[in-house]
Amino acid sequence: MEVVGICGSDVHYLTKGKIGDFIVKKPMIIGHEASGTVVQVGKNVKHLKPGDQVAIEPGVPCRVCAFCKSGDYHLCADIFFCATPPDDGNLSRYYVHAADFCYKLPSNMDLEDGALMEPLSVGVHATKRGKVKVGDVVLILGAGPIGLVTLLAAKARGASKIIITDILDVKLKTAKELGANYAIKIEKGQTEDEIINKILQLLGEQPNKTFDCSGAELCVRIALKVTKSKGIVVLVGMGQFEQTLPLASAIFREVDIRGVFRYNNDYPTAIDMVATGKISVKPLITHHFRIEETLQAFEKAKTQEGDPIKILIHANPKWRPSS
Amino acid sequence: MEVVGICGSDVHYLTKGKIGDFIVKKPMIIGHEASGTVVQVGKNVKHLKPGDQVAIEPGVPCRVCAFCKSGDYHLCADIFFCATPPDDGNLSRYYVHAADFCYKLPSNMDLEDGALMEPLSVGVHATKRGKVKVGDVVLILGAGPIGLVTLLAAKARGASKIIITDILDVKLKTAKELGANYAIKIEKGQTEDEIINKILQLLGEQPNKTFDCSGAELCVRIALKVTKSKGIVVLVGMGQFEQTLPLASAIFREVDIRGVFRYNNDYPTAIDMVATGKISVKPLITHHFRIEETLQAFEKAKTQEGDPIKILIHANPKWRPSS
Amino acid sequence: MEVVGICGSDVHYLTKGKIGDFIVKKPMIIGHEASGTVVQVGKNVKHLKPGDQVAIEPGVPCRVCAFCKSGDYHLCADIFFCATPPDDGNLSRYYVHAADFCYKLPSNMDLEDGALMEPLSVGVHATKRGKVKVGDVVLILGAGPIGLVTLLAAKARGASKIIITDILDVKLKTAKELGANYAIKIEKGQTEDEIINKILQLLGEQPNKTFDCSGAELCVRIALKVTKSKGIVVLVGMGQFEQTLPLASAIFREVDIRGVFRYNNDYPTAIDMVATGKISVKPLITHHFRIEETLQAFEKAKTQEGDPIKILIHANPKWRPSS
Amino acid sequence: MEVVGICGSDVHYLTKGKIGDFIVKKPMIIGHEASGTVVQVGKNVKHLKPGDQVAIEPGVPCRVCAFCKSGDYHLCADIFFCATPPDDGNLSRYYVHAADFCYKLPSNMDLEDGALMEPLSVGVHATKRGKVKVGDVVLILGAGPIGLVTLLAAKARGASKIIITDILDVKLKTAKELGANYAIKIEKGQTEDEIINKILQLLGEQPNKTFDCSGAELCVRIALKVTKSKGIVVLVGMGQFEQTLPLASAIFREVDIRGVFRYNNDYPTAIDMVATGKISVKPLITHHFRIEETLQAFEKAKTQEGDPIKILIHANPKWRPSS
Repeated sequence: MEVVGICGSDVHYLTKGKIGDFIVKKPMIIGHEASGTVVQVGKNVKHLKPGDQVAIEPGVPCRVCAFCKSGDYHLCADIFFCATPPDDGNLSRYYVHAADFCYKLPSNMDLEDGALMEPLSVGVHATKRGKVKVGDVVLILGAGPIGLVTLLAAKARGASKIIITDILDVKLKTAKELGANYAIKIEKGQTEDEIINKILQLLGEQPNKTFDCSGAELCVRIALKVTKSKGIVVLVGMGQFEQTLPLASAIFREVDIRGVFRYNNDYPTAIDMVATGKISVKPLITHHFRIEETLQAFEKAKTQEGDPIKILIHANPKWRPSS
Repeated sequence: MEVVGICGSDVHYLTKGKIGDFIVKKPMIIGHEASGTVVQVGKNVKHLKPGDQVAIEPGVPCRVCAFCKSGDYHLCADIFFCATPPDDGNLSRYYVHAADFCYKLPSNMDLEDGALMEPLSVGVHATKRGKVKVGDVVLILGAGPIGLVTLLAAKARGASKIIITDILDVKLKTAKELGANYAIKIEKGQTEDEIINKILQLLGEQPNKTFDCSGAELCVRIALKVTKSKGIVVLVGMGQFEQTLPLASAIFREVDIRGVFRYNNDYPTAIDMVATGKISVKPLITHHFRIEETLQAFEKAKTQEGDPIKILIHANPKWRPSS
Repeated sequence: MEVVGICGSDVHYLTKGKIGDFIVKKPMIIGHEASGTVVQVGKNVKHLKPGDQVAIEPGVPCRVCAFCKSGDYHLCADIFFCATPPDDGNLSRYYVHAADFCYKLPSNMDLEDGALMEPLSVGVHATKRGKVKVGDVVLILGAGPIGLVTLLAAKARGASKIIITDILDVKLKTAKELGANYAIKIEKGQTEDEIINKILQLLGEQPNKTFDCSGAELCVRIALKVTKSKGIVVLVGMGQFEQTLPLASAIFREVDIRGVFRYNNDYPTAIDMVATGKISVKPLITHHFRIEETLQAFEKAKTQEGDPIKILIHANPKWRPSS
Repeated sequence: MEVVGICGSDVHYLTKGKIGDFIVKKPMIIGHEASGTVVQVGKNVKHLKPGDQVAIEPGVPCRVCAFCKSGDYHLCADIFFCATPPDDGNLSRYYVHAADFCYKLPSNMDLEDGALMEPLSVGVHATKRGKVKVGDVVLILGAGPIGLVTLLAAKARGASKIIITDILDVKLKTAKELGANYAIKIEKGQTEDEIINKILQLLGEQPNKTFDCSGAELCVRIALKVTKSKGIVVLVGMGQFEQTLPLASAIFREVDIRGVFRYNNDYPTAIDMVATGKISVKPLITHHFRIEETLQAFEKAKTQEGDPIKILIHANPKWRPSS
């Protein structure tokens, strides 16, 4: 193993012991945003050889159910998924994984890029579900890591204009650097109509694709109301289970509401986006730790001190911080 | 004009004076579920001639906006629509309409079938939005007129199994006659999980396409929870604007939520379904009135006495009830 | 094993020793249109148990390549496929197959239906590729077994009108019995324009979906010319490799040309079409033989004496012909 | 009128008097790649005002046929189309056009860009038909004006790699400047397999989207053979009507073959591609003439002397060549 990023879900499992129905019942190795260097391959593996650097897609499905056979393997009920209980993750020195879910990195991408293919795939999948294409006017609600990878993927897919919101200035600043055309700060006490008006005023039109990456009820409400007729609202964030929503405001204008669950067949696209220079994931990396410093890394992730976006843990003992 | 059906919206405008933002501010002719006999055609009209019997699609869009030019004319902001204020409807003796929205009835369909192409088009559109196809397992929540036309359209599209729910036995009986495989009565006080269990027990599997035709929050909640991963929930009914929903239960399983607004390019399909004998709309017709008896017809529609499904008003003075 | 049908490709391998690049280099067991009764299941198999009657999808793909993982497993380069050299088929007394490609037959389908799910899946796949839906006007060129299963599948998918052509009266007669609205005999010496005119005259309009199930250059030419603008031509038949075609007549009217290769995820739909009573495959069955009579069965298939459509071989020694 | 480009079809009408069934029977004004400045608008026009600079989509359809109402207005049988007989074009000082087919140019685009939106829309439409998206490996056969606009549009849609072929070095040089990753010269006497091998060698894989922009039988043959299974071949060029083709090599690998006819709803996308800086059409412009010099402009177009790509004619007498 080489580089493993920390995800919000890792922190959640560490501090709460569960996410929804997934409950940590025995010690579990963490880590699912990972890259590695191939040490050994099975005898039928042709696309990899020792020494290859790979991005590791953390889910390995059953391959025999109807979801797997129709291309929706991410919905497989029997999928093995790194660091989703009871399955161990890959924040370790050595790790064995199905070869077809290890993607060789092109020569112009490094192992840190490789680890970031996991969060980027979330954005790639969300924008695939949202059918983002040239000419789209995109609204992203929430500029955390998921909001930012959605922004990157939307940009790579050719969105015409991207507007993003958050409650923290520091996140909006990063979003602007990553290519957002507009970044709006949502202030305490603002009503949904005030925020909607600000969005419309800046864009001069309605967004036709809206991504909620916050999970906040307020943001889902805004998404349903502001999106253009015949547009798509994609809900990427995880919020409270029960929400009070003006569903009719989207429904009667044939705005589709679509969810996302992880990703499927999206790693190759994520790698291609970076390899062809359409986007760079490097600005997402804010902190580095050695594997021996994992506790400090998670402390940083918990406190959010220093406004981390992506914290990377380096499993290779030969790793040295670039000065 | 020949036959005009009464729609729930007609009754709503009559008794409340408005639906959402559509407010009746001056006297308005009612009627939009209609058929007629051509008396005269414009000089460029080639597909119709005097004497032809036609089903009348009640909306005529602007034809120049982006929605119109991309096939989504039903979302045109400037559409003329019969009996949606301020536009007059066509419950009258004579009426002028754009020829291309008048569809000639084939010889094996009559004027009553023609009037019913309007509600059937709602079902045709809803099942198009829900991509109903051979092999689908369909749940329909609500067996009112909209639920029944959705049932008919789903059947014509080749759904494998159809299960329908309602709170009234009489409606479930009609649904069974129209081809529902299962009809479940929802009892007062039943919890959503009890109803879901009953659905799953009868089907032996989850429905992959669910249509809410009730507008009830309880039913929308059931739809979101019970639909199979990667399935589609179509919201056809109009309920309260604000609803408290377990959105996440659909979202994380990539169940899409789609609304419907009227119909577009669906009349030809509706006519084809009946003309080829796949379905019959005749069982929906429960009551007949002459145009002079319009007040009684609306009284019947308001009281729901005698469990009307479709009440037809006959505008042609030559009409005689079939004994 | 229970019932195994004879396919044209079986006869081809027997008499020519190859189809295209697939060459029989050593003795090969024939048979890929098959049903069986489960004798034993692997320990992880949950959907089957001994005694279950199953239809057997003959191809088992690698499950790890990009085609497999995106749902197009039929295009997998490493697929095992019964009776495609060098892979043995299943015309034998006992046979082992991947459990997920064995589909349990519902109680209202028998083992003969089960064997016919293979050819029917070709029609199901072809009509899926042709996006056949309610209201379509379908032209099928060629009424051999492939033409007939395409007809059945198109009917089950709700095609509005189906017209079929062939050079033999006996095949057209069967096509009419199976539900074709029109059946046209193509006479020796007829020009393509004469045939096109006859098609248009009978339909009163252009077909919007055309299936060539003949492989004849003449028929492909007709398909390209006669199909309605924005329609689809599906080429199901295997003809000469090089054909002289008026491609432009389809291209400039945005008629898509699509091929088919076997089927993927189509068995469940095929079974559903029969189980729900939409269609019956029984009329395709014309001859029965015991496994000991396999040589006679193939002789019949070669000579086409008695106009066989589907010849079934019964591998179960307990089988008795129904009197 | 401001700027009008010369298209190959204009030259064809001038020298041959017809293209296919379109025959020039009386004097016809030429010109359909045009931009203008609004002088006057109809009373219902809201999106334009005098002084606005617009790109003019040259086709105005009937708006009432089934094609128009379902978004495929380009296939309307009654479409008015500039400079397609018998309809006059717009190479003139003043010209009246349907306002909804006049697209206001954003402030960062000029009138020359505006005229080029017509050819670019051909590329936008072709790549829409070919579903070009991020990660695609694109082969374009032919680097004439149509090949180049297809290249630009494919690039704007995020194609991962683009390889282009031609028989002339000068065109390949332009293609490289416009962003082709590889440009291959097709030499006299080369076989299709030699060319295919060269393409595969350079790409290291098969293209999954191939555009024939040459119309040459050789190129169509290459397209059918070289495209990856489940890929798309789009035929953009107009070649001989009858072609001898190895159709089976595409068909059995489920490579779809799709044609294009002009464009529909593609102008906004074309404008967006340029306005957002994804691509520039300026390098396509090689020659300028005043409207009084139209004959010389056409002479240049006929002789191809100086290797013109796009020749623009300036209808505004105030126009001055930039020094």
